[in-house]
Amino acid sequence: MNLILFQSHELNVNGEASLADARATHLLDVLKVTPGHQVRVGVVNGGVGTATVTAVDGRTVGLRCEMDGDVPRRPPVDLLLALPRPKVMRRLWAQLAALGVGQIILTNASRVERPYFDTHVLSSACYEPLLIEGLQQARDTRVPEVSIHRQFRILVEDTLDTLFGSGLRVVAHPAEGGLLSTLVQEHRGERVLLAIGPEGGWNSFELELLQAHGFRAAGMGPRTLRSDTACIALLALVHEAMRAG
Amino acid sequence: MNLILFQSHELNVNGEASLADARATHLLDVLKVTPGHQVRVGVVNGGVGTATVTAVDGRTVGLRCEMDGDVPRRPPVDLLLALPRPKVMRRLWAQLAALGVGQIILTNASRVERPYFDTHVLSSACYEPLLIEGLQQARDTRVPEVSIHRQFRILVEDTLDTLFGSGLRVVAHPAEGGLLSTLVQEHRGERVLLAIGPEGGWNSFELELLQAHGFRAAGMGPRTLRSDTACIALLALVHEAMRAG
Repeated sequence: MNLILFQSHELNVNGEASLADARATHLLDVLKVTPGHQVRVGVVNGGVGTATVTAVDGRTVGLRCEMDGDVPRRPPVDLLLALPRPKVMRRLWAQLAALGVGQIILTNASRVERPYFDTHVLSSACYEPLLIEGLQQARDTRVPEVSIHRQFRILVEDTLDTLFGSGLRVVAHPAEGGLLSTLVQEHRGERVLLAIGPEGGWNSFELELLQAHGFRAAGMGPRTLRSDTACIALLALVHEAMRAG
Repeated sequence: MNLILFQSHELNVNGEASLADARATHLLDVLKVTPGHQVRVGVVNGGVGTATVTAVDGRTVGLRCEMDGDVPRRPPVDLLLALPRPKVMRRLWAQLAALGVGQIILTNASRVERPYFDTHVLSSACYEPLLIEGLQQARDTRVPEVSIHRQFRILVEDTLDTLFGSGLRVVAHPAEGGLLSTLVQEHRGERVLLAIGPEGGWNSFELELLQAHGFRAAGMGPRTLRSDTACIALLALVHEAMRAG
């Protein structure tokens, strides 16, 4: 937790808050704060700043926040992901938020198993705290937008242009197409939408539909990765290529 | 499992083997093989090839292998990793092998907790099957070499030159130094040793000792990642930079 995030309603008009939850535990047991200590803070989808510890009373920590930093820029990368199995998806939420994505578009695909959609892991009660955890790790405040689509074709044909307007659309495909980093650098300054298939890959109908809707295929070498490993690897590549570009 | 890996002693002189373990389960339940089917196979630390299913008897699968492919090249990247907590390390083994590393050098550091070294996760009985799982995912046969070092200073001062001779040494440090991909591309054709610190980072003594022993600092942008996320992200960046370089 490199940044303590607040919901805006948790702060009073003077920027004061009193914490007694996991954030207080972190402040007390990891950062070992005492009155006068300063810690980095942020408001969910808002700015960042510094808080001074005003009081420690048992397991409760009082803070006064000075939000003098800018609102972080929305990450310039969006993710279109064929829904992985629930155990993998649960692990991914925080990591995706930490790596930085503007939105997470989850979709069905032929090789996604139907019961995956009926899981608790797709409820905002489950994923929001995990997204916040990832943001606190990465010192970001911008919560990725999440949307869940049970019909791949309707998503790609009808909905996607609304979710992702202009920008570079890339579909990761093992060992096919140009190098992802090269492609991103050629489209310097554009948002990127990165599509990652299920374990076993997109089928040929899905791949053709994506390509017919503007997705360029890009590989990441000859090694086939598990979909969660691939998500992290490919998002890191896109971010790095944008910094280098 | 995109490649079925055998230990060399499992094949008889005619290249035949009989499987009744998790590999057989995968062949029967996922690939749904019947006699005559062909599947990709490899020998641990050896070549790759094709096997023909010769018999299916209950849950046992007979195969005849033709090892006509080359031995894959040892991945040109080595990892020096401050030991993460056991739960994280357990998850990393297969992912590291899938991403491709020549060796995994695990070390103590000031912010590594001592009990982490006394875990089952560091026994070869635990990690070897996980490394094999990652290789089967990525279609590789080369098992990463693993070494475990309880004394950081002795490792860096006395042992490291033997483990890693010439090549580029890089230490990942959030938001410091040049871009990792640029640094790797400037050292085209060299092996890379990538050092990744513990949660909380290297302390200043450790960072200076690494730099005194040839490590260049390279960042990956302003976001601080969990050490397992960072491992995957940074290894992916190094591999991609080598392909682009």
